[in-house]
Amino acid sequence: MSSTAGQVIRCKGAAVAWEAGKPLVMEEVDVAPPQAMEVRVKILFTSLCHTDVYFWEAKGQTPLFPRIFGHEAGGIVESVGEGVTELEPGDHVLPVFTGECKECRHCKSEESNMCDLLRINTDRGVMLNDGKSRFSIRGQPIYHFVGTSTFSEYTVVHVGCLAKINPAAPLDKVCVLSCGISTGLGATLNVAKPKKGSSVAIFGLGAVGLAAAEGARISGASRIIGVDLNANRFNEAKKFGVTEFVNPKDHDKPVHEVIAEMTNGGVDRSVECTGSVSAMISAFECVHDGWGVAVLVGVPNKDDAFKTHPMNVLNERTLKGTFFGNYKPRSDLPSVVEKYMNKELELEKFITHEVPFAEINKAFEYMLSGAGLRCIIKMDA
Amino acid sequence: MSSTAGQVIRCKGAAVAWEAGKPLVMEEVDVAPPQAMEVRVKILFTSLCHTDVYFWEAKGQTPLFPRIFGHEAGGIVESVGEGVTELEPGDHVLPVFTGECKECRHCKSEESNMCDLLRINTDRGVMLNDGKSRFSIRGQPIYHFVGTSTFSEYTVVHVGCLAKINPAAPLDKVCVLSCGISTGLGATLNVAKPKKGSSVAIFGLGAVGLAAAEGARISGASRIIGVDLNANRFNEAKKFGVTEFVNPKDHDKPVHEVIAEMTNGGVDRSVECTGSVSAMISAFECVHDGWGVAVLVGVPNKDDAFKTHPMNVLNERTLKGTFFGNYKPRSDLPSVVEKYMNKELELEKFITHEVPFAEINKAFEYMLSGAGLRCIIKMDA
Ligand SMILES: NC(=O)c1ccc[n+]([C@@H]2O[C@H](COP(=O)([O-])OP(=O)(O)OC[C@H]3O[C@@H](n4cnc5c(N)ncnc54)[C@H](O)[C@@H]3O)[C@@H](O)[C@H]2O)c1
Ligand SMILES: NC(=O)c1ccc[n+]([C@@H]2O[C@H](COP(=O)([O-])OP(=O)(O)OC[C@H]3O[C@@H](n4cnc5c(N)ncnc54)[C@H](O)[C@@H]3O)[C@@H](O)[C@H]2O)c1
Ligand SMILES: [Zn+2]
Ligand SMILES: [Zn+2]
Ligand SMILES: [Zn+2]
Ligand SMILES: [Zn+2]
Repeated sequence: MSSTAGQVIRCKGAAVAWEAGKPLVMEEVDVAPPQAMEVRVKILFTSLCHTDVYFWEAKGQTPLFPRIFGHEAGGIVESVGEGVTELEPGDHVLPVFTGECKECRHCKSEESNMCDLLRINTDRGVMLNDGKSRFSIRGQPIYHFVGTSTFSEYTVVHVGCLAKINPAAPLDKVCVLSCGISTGLGATLNVAKPKKGSSVAIFGLGAVGLAAAEGARISGASRIIGVDLNANRFNEAKKFGVTEFVNPKDHDKPVHEVIAEMTNGGVDRSVECTGSVSAMISAFECVHDGWGVAVLVGVPNKDDAFKTHPMNVLNERTLKGTFFGNYKPRSDLPSVVEKYMNKELELEKFITHEVPFAEINKAFEYMLSGAGLRCIIKMDA
Repeated sequence: MSSTAGQVIRCKGAAVAWEAGKPLVMEEVDVAPPQAMEVRVKILFTSLCHTDVYFWEAKGQTPLFPRIFGHEAGGIVESVGEGVTELEPGDHVLPVFTGECKECRHCKSEESNMCDLLRINTDRGVMLNDGKSRFSIRGQPIYHFVGTSTFSEYTVVHVGCLAKINPAAPLDKVCVLSCGISTGLGATLNVAKPKKGSSVAIFGLGAVGLAAAEGARISGASRIIGVDLNANRFNEAKKFGVTEFVNPKDHDKPVHEVIAEMTNGGVDRSVECTGSVSAMISAFECVHDGWGVAVLVGVPNKDDAFKTHPMNVLNERTLKGTFFGNYKPRSDLPSVVEKYMNKELELEKFITHEVPFAEINKAFEYMLSGAGLRCIIKMDA
């Protein structure tokens, strides 16, 4: 155990969101020791994802402030709470916004990763064990975010939300596997499962969609058709193996018809990574009858309706949804890190920016302006 | 070759539908010899399916008269046309309303049975080879129905629409495997694939739904929940292993909520066999998140819309459609017959009536009044 185990750690740096949409403020924060089944982690690198921005803006979402955001990260275990046997100080870990308790029906099912105990909960700003926060500033509690709160030098995470990874893996690269990249990659590799030589359409060429394209490239797909309303995305997409580009705005007919014409009846697989319900419907309707599989990844709006003629289903198409690419965080993420280590998976091309922790608000600006894909925030720089 | 090979056969009996909705009339019909890739079959037993009745009523469907209906049957090859190498006179066969050419992309795909060449076509009343009928009465052509027209002592069928089966199989039983029973059975065994001990909901307890239940029983499902608007169906359903019954009319809340309450969150699998779009939606929404799979079988109306909130998909549910239970007629039906032969599959319980061919109109009456499941029509009785 480190000398800080069991003690409150006064963090030199945590980026606190005091109010919706206002720049984060660097604060000294007290981080309480981990309780039962909890782990305190020293974060080395974190990156920014749209979900942080959505909840920071809190336009549709429940506002919960002051709060420490951040959920894509890599770190090292500082100390562990009671009952934690799988991790010890010094272990390298990726915190994940959703967990794996290994006990519930979902964790025991081969097919699901939607743990009953630790499934993402964006409205809860406290730890499960005592319903309280581990963060405070001069006694005032600061809310957690999706159980990770990685915009802090130290954070406390449930052991079920930590993947123990190969200590040789560079945390400044593999930290991006905590959320969006694994989501897109797993949507293709674990759910759409394209065969070698097949055709795959990817709707939405943000980080998640490009990771889905990376999955199609790894699977040996021969045609990867990128669909986006923003033509600027295509240049970046070429690096990810996207072979053709369709901008729905360039066509008079519905995009699923455009794709059917390009592919003699439809693609073998499609992966939707936009969050737009019309793209979800097109992604379903553009797969070939008989064998086509469409996978939905994007998070829809509250009042959206997915609508299609039932004959589109009856003609032997499959529609599936996925959450975190169907990866079980603890059981499966270590092997995704290995895919990077053995050069099957390329992560460098997702990392377009880097900033020191003190300049974290710049990362928000990059994302809001749509520049690049992932910005790595270096905690001790 | 039989002595009739190459000759026109004057059938003593064919049941001709001269007009929509009018009783069939027993006529002497000339049946021309099979052309290239065609086979002439002596029908021994045929049964009646809703699809015959729909197209005979021709309320929504394209009317095509005079026509010989019938597509569930068992028979013996009388003679074969040019190029037919897989069948010879004396072989026992089941004609099927959809075919398998073994050459197209669908036939070559492991996943599809929707043959490009021989996929069901309810509007075509002629043979593919020359665009003409093989049936005539005093020179007047009589239309075919879905390539089978089994309400005739002899019929001509494309070789791709004939499954060669074990000659030891009793044709008066296995004839029902030509359509609805295989459809329901395959929907469960090939598509929903419930695991041993799992829960399965079956929407619609007609012949197709009961065959789906039979598939669940064979799979070792521990709970088989039958859903029907007609409470009379439950008694029959018990014979098919249905363990619980839900009549949506008995509940104030939507049926998917009723089922979720009965099953701690939803069933593992559901199979919809009604043709009602609201049942299709309920069948999808009643499966458990994380791993639930819903399979649609029923044929919807032209203007129906399948509508659900995309979150229901994202929460790792799967929606699939199937056509003829995903069986490839030629490759797969022989093994379904074997399931009957080795007593895995029970067919007797589907057969509730029997009539001699001369009384075929009685079979229509039984079906229209909703009495029983399948009526076997004995051709030479
Ligand atoms: N299911 C999960 O576990 C999970 C995890 C992370 C992210 N997500 C979701 O994945 C989606 C993508 O995330 P991202 O970070 O890549 O987002 P992003 O905003 O960077 O990219 C989305 C892309 O979709 C394009 N787009 C929007 N509407 C479109 C349409 N109708 N047709 C074609 N293209 C369209 C946009 O132009 C943009 O390029 C979001 O909905 C996000 O919430 C899901
Ligand atoms: N996909 C295929 O290859 C294929 C092949 C054959 C038949 N089918 C279709 O399968 C369906 C069933 O065929 P069948 O012969 O068993 O029909 P059927 O009419 O004998 O049985 C249908 C049952 O569904 C019930 N039902 C209707 N609406 C319902 C609702 N909203 N909720 C619950 N129950 C409801 C009816 O009361 C009836 O008992 C039909 O749509 C038929 O066209 C499909
Ligand atoms: Zn769990
Ligand atoms: Zn994220
Ligand atoms: Zn074919
Ligand atoms: Zn039928």
